[in-house]
Amino acid sequence: MKVDICFSPALYPFYRKDNETVIIVDIFRASTTICAMLTNGASAVIPVADIEDAKLYKSQGYLVGAERNAKRCEFADFGNSPFDYTREIVTDKEIVFTTTNGTQAIDAAKNCNNMFIGAFSNISALAEKCLQLGEDILVLCAGWNNTVNIEDMLFGSALIEELGKNIDIEINSDAVKIANHLWSDAKENPIDFLRTSEHYKRLVMRGAEKDIEFCFLRNTTSIVPYYNKETKKIII
Amino acid sequence: MKVDICFSPALYPFYRKDNETVIIVDIFRASTTICAMLTNGASAVIPVADIEDAKLYKSQGYLVGAERNAKRCEFADFGNSPFDYTREIVTDKEIVFTTTNGTQAIDAAKNCNNMFIGAFSNISALAEKCLQLGEDILVLCAGWNNTVNIEDMLFGSALIEELGKNIDIEINSDAVKIANHLWSDAKENPIDFLRTSEHYKRLVMRGAEKDIEFCFLRNTTSIVPYYNKETKKIII
Repeated sequence: MKVDICFSPALYPFYRKDNETVIIVDIFRASTTICAMLTNGASAVIPVADIEDAKLYKSQGYLVGAERNAKRCEFADFGNSPFDYTREIVTDKEIVFTTTNGTQAIDAAKNCNNMFIGAFSNISALAEKCLQLGEDILVLCAGWNNTVNIEDMLFGSALIEELGKNIDIEINSDAVKIANHLWSDAKENPIDFLRTSEHYKRLVMRGAEKDIEFCFLRNTTSIVPYYNKETKKIII
Repeated sequence: MKVDICFSPALYPFYRKDNETVIIVDIFRASTTICAMLTNGASAVIPVADIEDAKLYKSQGYLVGAERNAKRCEFADFGNSPFDYTREIVTDKEIVFTTTNGTQAIDAAKNCNNMFIGAFSNISALAEKCLQLGEDILVLCAGWNNTVNIEDMLFGSALIEELGKNIDIEINSDAVKIANHLWSDAKENPIDFLRTSEHYKRLVMRGAEKDIEFCFLRNTTSIVPYYNKETKKIII
């Protein structure tokens, strides 16, 4: 199995290959939050890239999560915290979701062969699903407005480590080597490693320390969100 | 002084700012080779992104360096090795130059405020020039077909280290933190650090070990190539 990591949605056209599985990762926080929604019983997540599309859904009676620049949008029912989406509110509901980066990454790769949503919360279940499928893997980091970030890269390496417990992984890419180098130093205490990073500081400024902790808890769920190209919905 | 590193020409639109100095870096080998041409007496380098443009110049009698995928193009006078451009041949000549990545990076940033070409061969002179100008710095890594590579990133961090000897550098960017992390482990023996990297292996396959060594020699020249927006030529 070949693996690669793409550091920004804007680089996806240069990393994409046919017949591969793309893992969308936005550790802080969209991919972690999508996992939380579906774990808590939402029937589907409808990712939209534009705020205007999200408002349209809202006017049609949908529950809508919307975030820009780490803040909840005024018109929305939820922001981008995994704690916003409680079982009481989301069970059996379809949730429309738009965020600064995560839903843009989904949009960039929407025509890929298979797309899953990855987070530390579902890392082992996700690895198992990837192994079952057996396709080459591309981890697509959501980044921040198409610039690179550290936390998504760390997850990419952590997932490859998880896959490597069971099969031989072929690593040729400099991107994977860069991520592995960071992860080998970060894995003992990733949150500590991230303390000076851009988005960590942004989240702390917004009082989201609890989210940061949650986003690095491993295997709190066994669901693996899958993007259905026909319906354009994320389901399990 | 603020500094940042952009890992790919395709990410330049998301990193660029007004009134900054852009440093083009393609360690293996275009930026090192441009420094060698001008050090050996070439009067200017005319960077072109397209092979067809290079052929047109050739038909007009220009000396042309052209490389694709680490190989010299058949029609050209030179390839992308710094050793191709000897003093005997290039003195007082304008050299047309097109490469897989380096000249694409120049093209991407051609409208920036000030553009210099950076390499380990001119790192101290370059840092001095940047300090004289006093603008914020963006290191633009040429990468490989818009994917990221390690060696350009290492140079970005090495240049920031050089600048930091003389002034306070403001580092907010995750990209710089990633590069610094790699450089701190690589600096003792960068070539050894790169042995499993993509482009290192590609160059060794082409028999270019001597180029690799040369590309990591520091301060073999004191010239700082500058891109003149009016004439579209690189001069000193």
